[in-house]
Amino acid sequence: MPQVSQRGAAMPMSPYRKLTPYADAAKARGIHVYHLNIGQPDIETPAAVLAAVQQADIRVLEYSHGAGNLSYRQKLASYYQRNHIDVTPDDLIVTTGGSEAILFALLSCLNPGDEVIVPEPYYGAYTAFAIAAGVHLVPVLSHIETGFALPPIADLEARVTERTKAVLICNPNNPTGYVYTRAELEQLLAFCQRHQLFLLSDEAYREFCYDAPYVSALHLGPAAEAHVVLLDTISKRYSACGARIGALVTKNPQVHDAAFRFAQMRISPPGLAQLLGEAAAELPDSYFDHTKAEYQARRDRMVARLREMPGVQCPVPGGAFYVMPHLPIDDSERFARWLLEAFQHEGGTVMLSPATGFYATPGGGRQEVRLAYVLNLAAIDRAMDCLAEALRVYPGRQH
Amino acid sequence: MPQVSQRGAAMPMSPYRKLTPYADAAKARGIHVYHLNIGQPDIETPAAVLAAVQQADIRVLEYSHGAGNLSYRQKLASYYQRNHIDVTPDDLIVTTGGSEAILFALLSCLNPGDEVIVPEPYYGAYTAFAIAAGVHLVPVLSHIETGFALPPIADLEARVTERTKAVLICNPNNPTGYVYTRAELEQLLAFCQRHQLFLLSDEAYREFCYDAPYVSALHLGPAAEAHVVLLDTISKRYSACGARIGALVTKNPQVHDAAFRFAQMRISPPGLAQLLGEAAAELPDSYFDHTKAEYQARRDRMVARLREMPGVQCPVPGGAFYVMPHLPIDDSERFARWLLEAFQHEGGTVMLSPATGFYATPGGGRQEVRLAYVLNLAAIDRAMDCLAEALRVYPGRQH
Repeated sequence: MPQVSQRGAAMPMSPYRKLTPYADAAKARGIHVYHLNIGQPDIETPAAVLAAVQQADIRVLEYSHGAGNLSYRQKLASYYQRNHIDVTPDDLIVTTGGSEAILFALLSCLNPGDEVIVPEPYYGAYTAFAIAAGVHLVPVLSHIETGFALPPIADLEARVTERTKAVLICNPNNPTGYVYTRAELEQLLAFCQRHQLFLLSDEAYREFCYDAPYVSALHLGPAAEAHVVLLDTISKRYSACGARIGALVTKNPQVHDAAFRFAQMRISPPGLAQLLGEAAAELPDSYFDHTKAEYQARRDRMVARLREMPGVQCPVPGGAFYVMPHLPIDDSERFARWLLEAFQHEGGTVMLSPATGFYATPGGGRQEVRLAYVLNLAAIDRAMDCLAEALRVYPGRQH
Repeated sequence: MPQVSQRGAAMPMSPYRKLTPYADAAKARGIHVYHLNIGQPDIETPAAVLAAVQQADIRVLEYSHGAGNLSYRQKLASYYQRNHIDVTPDDLIVTTGGSEAILFALLSCLNPGDEVIVPEPYYGAYTAFAIAAGVHLVPVLSHIETGFALPPIADLEARVTERTKAVLICNPNNPTGYVYTRAELEQLLAFCQRHQLFLLSDEAYREFCYDAPYVSALHLGPAAEAHVVLLDTISKRYSACGARIGALVTKNPQVHDAAFRFAQMRISPPGLAQLLGEAAAELPDSYFDHTKAEYQARRDRMVARLREMPGVQCPVPGGAFYVMPHLPIDDSERFARWLLEAFQHEGGTVMLSPATGFYATPGGGRQEVRLAYVLNLAAIDRAMDCLAEALRVYPGRQH
């Protein structure tokens, strides 16, 4: 029998998938599982946006332009302009979710064997994209004590080699919720300029900054333009994860040209969902007021509840919809499984993401978990009741 | 300024894109351009299939399962069963078009630097996917004299190295329209068994076989199961290219597992389009009767017209919706450009695909072109009038 590739075997199994059988079994026992483990918003997709697809007059569902329909790119460019990101339709490549933007950026900017520096913890799928693109992620540790702020630039400097080609950040951050300051982004840009590196900036959660104005890597002025590649998606900002519409945005014409060639390979991004994206790009900025207020209230509640729990350390995340606390536990994977297999409180339990899935450094994340606040306030309260009780009785509690 | 990757620079520019400015200029001069250059069907997307999306009740457009919605995979498995391809929902991974199925198959089955043997001429995007996956295509020439039948197995044997991991075929073939016989497929399977190779079979045009029953690589019995990976798409069979819904189908559990890990990387395939695919999978087989009869009439007309032209050699393609004739011209790229830049006949001209884009072997395809019969019979007649006149007056005509 022919053998599959080593990279196929090396691809990480989704941590979510590892826990799913235990969650299913808990539900089969009649236990309510509070899903704090996934970044799937519960907020409704705007009806006007869905209606744009559902009322469209389509005779033949044709391939679109390889970079996405011009009409969509025009409206998307306007959206970025409103966010003070000065781009034209020619600077945009519409992608199949943020995922494809990540893949195209790695393929376009790095050769096989090249290295990309990434603050750790980081979005787990970056590991998978790096394997697919044949490049190496070089993690630089950030720390809960600083709220997962950018590590000192000296720590990044120490990891630079001949093969270093890029820095990859997620801002606001998944999984930590940290929002980079303008000063941090300027330090990063200077670092990239010193070493001729690309700055790949995943800004999927741009709209969800609660304590300070959002700063994009493309807010850093003309000096940033040769370096910055924005990786974006409509998934989170319009609760439209299933659409699979994102964008690669760059003012660097060589990167744009290379990425466009990869885009032509798959002919076009999804057509129906581009109609949705086009309608979404026309939503007024006021659309975000309600959503952002709702997420902020949830964040405040979740952080407050976590801080009441003995032994829990919880920074206040400035953005996205994740909290990443330190818990007084032996092992976050064991704890996550125990919650589903062996625990219940008033008929409920919690499904969470062990933070080990966000670290490459061995041992990283063993006492941290990621909690997504994608449930309403009442459900968050009940989930926090469960978690507090679980921490009280968990056999692997650390003192 | 940081430099883009070598693979980005190596990615082929779409031949279509190279000619587009000349087509646009011709249109600006008031010339009607008959588009025989693209595999974009003109047949309408079935209304019932579009209605399934447009009438769906969606509250939150969520991520689907990484392998695609179970309800879709169930109906898709039924579709394959009706086509005597014995698979279950667990053998299917729904992909973002056939494109993503090709990429996942290469990533899952081959390591970087491995080789895949492919009969030439071949679908031009295979070159791009090979670059993205870091693997090498090894072409084996097929010939117009045999109608582009499978080259002798001895020619494939001669190209086997330590790095050979797979054979990639497109059946029915794009660009040649050739349909492999059962005997050819059995020879290919025996070859794959001898050398422990995967047989990657792109069957996007399955429904469009005009002269003999279609034989899938998964019709070859249990011995094929370890070797075969079907690459599929709904694009052509339901005129739904813009949906971007395909499938990777395999009975090899290791390949399925590896491909599923790559699928999890991008979380899920497009959601709206899966609703469309689900409705399409329920269309009765009789749906294809009309479409197939229409394409067959067009093929017959186009082949008959081409064979009337002096110096033209044209096999009868058994399937897909392409004809690949030999023309009495010096250079197919020059001819294609001349048609758009310097020619018109009764206010019209033809846009065609130079076959050089389907060959890696230097010089291959210089006297061949690919014509897609995606226009109605009357338009095909007018386009053939143009082509006949063009061949009469073309300055680079070869005698």
